[in-house]
Amino acid sequence: MFETKYALKGIIVQTPVFDKIEFHENEYVICEDGKSVGIFKELPEEYKDIKVYDYSDKFIIPGMSDIHVHAPQYGFRGMGMLLDGDSEWETWFERYSFPEESKFCDLNYANLAYSRFVNDLVKTTTTTRAAIFATIHREATELLMRKLADAGMAGYVGKLNMDRNSHYGYQETTEETIRETERWINETSEGYGSIKPIITPRYTPTCTDESMEALGKMATKYNVPVMSHLSEGLDEIEWVKSMKPEISCYGDAYDMYDMLGTTVPSLMAHVVHPTDIEYELLKKRNVTVAHCPASNMNAAGGVCRVLDMVRDGIKVGLGTDVAGSCTLSVMRAMTDAIQASKLRWVFTERNGEPFAKKHFLSVANAFYLATMGGGQFFGKVGCFEKDYEFDAVVLDDEDLKDFIDRPATDRFQRILWNHHARTIMVKYVQGKKIYDRDRDQQNY
Amino acid sequence: MFETKYALKGIIVQTPVFDKIEFHENEYVICEDGKSVGIFKELPEEYKDIKVYDYSDKFIIPGMSDIHVHAPQYGFRGMGMLLDGDSEWETWFERYSFPEESKFCDLNYANLAYSRFVNDLVKTTTTTRAAIFATIHREATELLMRKLADAGMAGYVGKLNMDRNSHYGYQETTEETIRETERWINETSEGYGSIKPIITPRYTPTCTDESMEALGKMATKYNVPVMSHLSEGLDEIEWVKSMKPEISCYGDAYDMYDMLGTTVPSLMAHVVHPTDIEYELLKKRNVTVAHCPASNMNAAGGVCRVLDMVRDGIKVGLGTDVAGSCTLSVMRAMTDAIQASKLRWVFTERNGEPFAKKHFLSVANAFYLATMGGGQFFGKVGCFEKDYEFDAVVLDDEDLKDFIDRPATDRFQRILWNHHARTIMVKYVQGKKIYDRDRDQQNY
Repeated sequence: MFETKYALKGIIVQTPVFDKIEFHENEYVICEDGKSVGIFKELPEEYKDIKVYDYSDKFIIPGMSDIHVHAPQYGFRGMGMLLDGDSEWETWFERYSFPEESKFCDLNYANLAYSRFVNDLVKTTTTTRAAIFATIHREATELLMRKLADAGMAGYVGKLNMDRNSHYGYQETTEETIRETERWINETSEGYGSIKPIITPRYTPTCTDESMEALGKMATKYNVPVMSHLSEGLDEIEWVKSMKPEISCYGDAYDMYDMLGTTVPSLMAHVVHPTDIEYELLKKRNVTVAHCPASNMNAAGGVCRVLDMVRDGIKVGLGTDVAGSCTLSVMRAMTDAIQASKLRWVFTERNGEPFAKKHFLSVANAFYLATMGGGQFFGKVGCFEKDYEFDAVVLDDEDLKDFIDRPATDRFQRILWNHHARTIMVKYVQGKKIYDRDRDQQNY
Repeated sequence: MFETKYALKGIIVQTPVFDKIEFHENEYVICEDGKSVGIFKELPEEYKDIKVYDYSDKFIIPGMSDIHVHAPQYGFRGMGMLLDGDSEWETWFERYSFPEESKFCDLNYANLAYSRFVNDLVKTTTTTRAAIFATIHREATELLMRKLADAGMAGYVGKLNMDRNSHYGYQETTEETIRETERWINETSEGYGSIKPIITPRYTPTCTDESMEALGKMATKYNVPVMSHLSEGLDEIEWVKSMKPEISCYGDAYDMYDMLGTTVPSLMAHVVHPTDIEYELLKKRNVTVAHCPASNMNAAGGVCRVLDMVRDGIKVGLGTDVAGSCTLSVMRAMTDAIQASKLRWVFTERNGEPFAKKHFLSVANAFYLATMGGGQFFGKVGCFEKDYEFDAVVLDDEDLKDFIDRPATDRFQRILWNHHARTIMVKYVQGKKIYDRDRDQQNY
């Protein structure tokens, strides 16, 4: 049981808008029935008797959303970078991704690996809202959904579709992928608390036209959103073009099957190399883009034009893209996004000019992407304005402090760049406390 | 007391050459009188009775060198990034660096701050070899040197010179900076174990011609090496040119005073924007370059052409450049260097071509920079070949493991990208154990 009305007190930080970060020191944020009532300097009259959890000098932030992450890849995070002069580098899929994901046909293995994943995810700032790629295996995917629900998490999980161009037997027939997906949607759409299914063709090269057509129809029929990968690498874009010469851009390969926002919301990861046509299409279709800065650096892909996109009204959030990146930390994804945007500016707009006008992500921008940017895909998620879902994380910077009394704005930046496991102190999801660092820690 | 002859057993990793990383599993590395005897599959006959410390499944790596780090800036690491749309960004020097460094005139403050710095540095992979910028204050600089020596560390510490263009009273007169530096060299050149002085004009804009001339003469007279900053930012390069219109490149401003390798070794940080003339000068003068990838990203500076430099025979090592970056971890500097080199390739050589030839740092390259690259500035430092100084770190990846038995090459990469405080298990410097995670930890 948990209280339905209470307040948290501390240094409350949020970014309801893209360019401005708010610091509310020594203020209250009120939770009522799992939703936020707002931030207050003093408790309003009608709330003056509610329980207050006083975190005083600690930071209280909205939950972050990780809108692109591969749960079965968590075990090999950090591996498969170019080892040395003798290495074949472009074997990431063949060497790691496909053989590892294929192991999840074994439910015992899936149980071990997904327990670790969920247990570690609970201890991050990703409060509830994650868009998680599983594998092609229906049963293992449901196991992951159950574990996430048991841990109090919310968000979307996708059973992958792959009926061509895979390896190691990690592939379904077209008939299987359609049948299993429909069964999975029927079994899970009501069944796992706040964990919902999302239709997830891995990407165009692994899905036949027949399966894509069926998935698009299923999305509309069951009103289930769609997620996938889009324009991540130049080689991949060429490959898709060669498979579907009739399309005007890669995004068309989803759009032609109603999986790019025409009938249900669509979430596309990466979008590092959109053509002008694709860029306009994303805008028109109200697609949400998952920017995955570390993964795009590791793959020597490039940097998504995040600032342009947000200014042009395209919705963008952050993805860790484990195991394209090494960590489930969305705070790390924030600092990666800032650094990547700076190098993008250096090598494109700046163009060798000293004293050039700067154009890259601020801390506020990155925090917005991590909270509001990704959160909007899940509803009213990502800040403490009235009626937003009450997802909150308490951050403790005690062991990062030095010998000078620093303003909250500086301490907050220090946390982003230097956080570690113990920084995450308490986590609330939809008003319910699901993690407390200082209590006995549950394992899911 | 410690043994003068012993062996460590485990998974020994080293990069004696730039392009090839060696993994010696279940082998021995022998230490004799603080130097390495080499790596062996079995103990040679004459060493068969020496004590063996068996780290079995753990990794044993050469110590890493951090060849550019500002000790007094450790307290504000991670701060001063562009906060939001209302922020003035280019106030890092005025807001953080100068006012904070000026506090080190107070020895009580210096004692607190440097204790924290040394204590944390001991727990990293930086075994002995650090090139550390202090402040202009002679006494505080000596305090830092004493603390580092007491902790068993080795390397260079520089008392800064600044006799123009500073703020907050954080500046010396020309006469002071010359007098204090000479006194400091006399007091410290024999006095602090393996911690030695290095002449450190902060950079051309903060040093008058008169002080530069005196420092250059002092370097030659006392045979003390020199370190400074070079070609870090385009604005800075323009500023230097405006101050010294007669020079052919920024490097000339050091070279004209014999501080670029003509009489003593020279270590220059950043070198993000060398002209062709400067590039040739660095080669000719045998200068060591400190590549600081995170700092250059954070400052929106750019990416040093590390691969070209190493191929062309310029010596390059890694610097964390705290507080330009957020962490003392040279392993993090390795992964930052890899990521930055990939984005450099994407935006320059690749030039939008799919299927383009890849040209960026491998894990072996980055590990070479972190060990041999920086180590060579300190002598025979950076690997376990015969007669190299015995600097070794034991890395424990127990809590990073998943449910698959991974090859050492994969586990090693996972450590680089996911290490945390407890990963560093034991550290040996010049044959002496100076840190053991599992014993009571000393505070220096």
